[in-house]
Amino acid sequence: MTASLTQLPPMDVAARAERLRGRFEQAGVDALLVTRLPNVTYLTGFTGSAGIVLVGPDALVFVTDGRYAEQAAEQLGAAGVEARIEVRVTQAAQRDVMSDAAGGYRRLGLEAHGVTWAQQRAFAGEWFPDAELVATEHLVEDLRRVKEPAEVARIHAACAIADDALAVVAPRLADRPTERDVALWLELEMRDRGAAGTSFDPIVASGPNGAKPHARPSGRSVEAGEPVVIDFGCIVDGYCSDMTRTLSVGDPGTEARHVYEVVRDAQQLGRDAVSAGADCSRVDKACRDVIDAAGWGDAFVHGTGHGVGLEIHEAPRVAATARDTLASGYVVTVEPGVYLPGVGGVRIEDTVVVTDDGADVLTRFSKDFLL
Amino acid sequence: MTASLTQLPPMDVAARAERLRGRFEQAGVDALLVTRLPNVTYLTGFTGSAGIVLVGPDALVFVTDGRYAEQAAEQLGAAGVEARIEVRVTQAAQRDVMSDAAGGYRRLGLEAHGVTWAQQRAFAGEWFPDAELVATEHLVEDLRRVKEPAEVARIHAACAIADDALAVVAPRLADRPTERDVALWLELEMRDRGAAGTSFDPIVASGPNGAKPHARPSGRSVEAGEPVVIDFGCIVDGYCSDMTRTLSVGDPGTEARHVYEVVRDAQQLGRDAVSAGADCSRVDKACRDVIDAAGWGDAFVHGTGHGVGLEIHEAPRVAATARDTLASGYVVTVEPGVYLPGVGGVRIEDTVVVTDDGADVLTRFSKDFLL
Repeated sequence: MTASLTQLPPMDVAARAERLRGRFEQAGVDALLVTRLPNVTYLTGFTGSAGIVLVGPDALVFVTDGRYAEQAAEQLGAAGVEARIEVRVTQAAQRDVMSDAAGGYRRLGLEAHGVTWAQQRAFAGEWFPDAELVATEHLVEDLRRVKEPAEVARIHAACAIADDALAVVAPRLADRPTERDVALWLELEMRDRGAAGTSFDPIVASGPNGAKPHARPSGRSVEAGEPVVIDFGCIVDGYCSDMTRTLSVGDPGTEARHVYEVVRDAQQLGRDAVSAGADCSRVDKACRDVIDAAGWGDAFVHGTGHGVGLEIHEAPRVAATARDTLASGYVVTVEPGVYLPGVGGVRIEDTVVVTDDGADVLTRFSKDFLL
Repeated sequence: MTASLTQLPPMDVAARAERLRGRFEQAGVDALLVTRLPNVTYLTGFTGSAGIVLVGPDALVFVTDGRYAEQAAEQLGAAGVEARIEVRVTQAAQRDVMSDAAGGYRRLGLEAHGVTWAQQRAFAGEWFPDAELVATEHLVEDLRRVKEPAEVARIHAACAIADDALAVVAPRLADRPTERDVALWLELEMRDRGAAGTSFDPIVASGPNGAKPHARPSGRSVEAGEPVVIDFGCIVDGYCSDMTRTLSVGDPGTEARHVYEVVRDAQQLGRDAVSAGADCSRVDKACRDVIDAAGWGDAFVHGTGHGVGLEIHEAPRVAATARDTLASGYVVTVEPGVYLPGVGGVRIEDTVVVTDDGADVLTRFSKDFLL
């Protein structure tokens, strides 16, 4: 896998702004001020912690601060993005640049989910007093749902690294490591294989800790005869992977095995429901029906999944109340679980890409329960 | 140091809500909906990724989702915080709980910097249609500026762990490790000493890479005769440390040594300016004047520092345009730097706590340039 990291196909970052402009008319805006960092990254290739982009009908204006002068020029250049790059140290100076650049726009879109109320008030009162500010919803995020093949390649590479890391670490569970040890090993193995880092803090939850879906790894030792929930992923060139496996060193007993089989069946049916044109709520229902029928409906306390890409959680949600429909190029997780307070938990999760004729599972590690 | 991690003094988390209420009248609110996670942590001890708190005149209502039912009960209990804990899986159900709980409040504060514009619109239209929503500014953050002794103890422990980690890692720079290796070693050494993790991704920027203040560690090897900027920190019981040192394996030449000495002098004068009652802008000026006088004013491209606590960057800012004044209990960084594109950079940073009669430097690693 590591070899392919050096051969990731190039992404056409520069083409994305034009696709975004194609949504301006429907959104009722002349231009969009992009402030959410993953969206800035998507449109420009810039990965620093401070940068905003004004996407006008014909041009991009990118503003960052002094820390990122070099990095911005390098990254936008490498991505082939044509933009006017302005480096301004103070907020006031950044305001002046953007205020001037947006002077001609009558209806200026803000990302309603990407600016705070305080920012919106400053934009309205000080930055753009003459424009009508429009609350846009997920314009860039909606573009990001459909991954380009080069984006899928990055997610796939991240998934393969996670697979390989777990293959090395899983056998060591027999040595009674602490949950924290297991989390650290996974992280090191992933970095060793070229990951830039974890896509979130790994969850390693053994025995009763497994009853908390988002438990933090503790100093507790993994014991034989109990399920261990391991939920982790890594980042390759900005793109995330996400996988959960539940493993047991030796037989955890009849009930645990029964829970495991129910969750595995639920997860399988959920994956089978993933295809272009399928409603996300149907994927959730496919999982939930199996768990409901087994009598643990109340113990499946979260949604079935979420999109994965530049962010570990992105659109669409895969949940009972979701109104989204899957399309080719979407990458989502399928991760039902059952959590029994005081006892433990089981969760199984894959990252899946929707294709023209079904779906491909990108996380391939075995779903055998017993080590 | 590790021993003291098990003896961290208890924090009086439960007393904080009452201090917050003491600010309600001036802010013009009957109650405050706290949505920024570090503020939720501060008021309740909860560390999950989803939770909101309604702070009323007499009671706290805490709402989270199904993933955190157990954790919320445990953490609020351990902190001695009395709150009504409500677990609701859907946004709609959370809205109903909060809408009901806030029914009697005429003026309800939102954290203007902690809600998105989209959230504010939903709160106004759907959650709290009968209340007047008030844009509050940093009510909880302002409380958090003054650290309790038990909070300083945690930051100090995190600083001491970082000191110890660098003491182990610095000598290994002579072996020409990659920047990424150095970053990983620091992280491992800090975790080994009981840190929960890094307080941010470590920066290790060697030679020309040092010209980017926020460079990411690369595969470049650290060479002899060039400065390496190392900026890193860790987390102890939720509290961050932050330290930068610039080191060189062997003599990097006259100019680099000169730059180093100027930055060291600037940093010393900045630290000397830290005391209760001092304006943050004066601390910045104390550093900046030295660097200006040496002719590198344009190469000091960022502010002098920032507060450190539950967040790695929090109030106050220490910058030329800052309007804050330091007070006893504030914890801030002092981190001037000089960045010469194509050549390299030097930054020196300490985390400092303001005391009744001056300031204590919490990061103690040597400021010798040459290894």
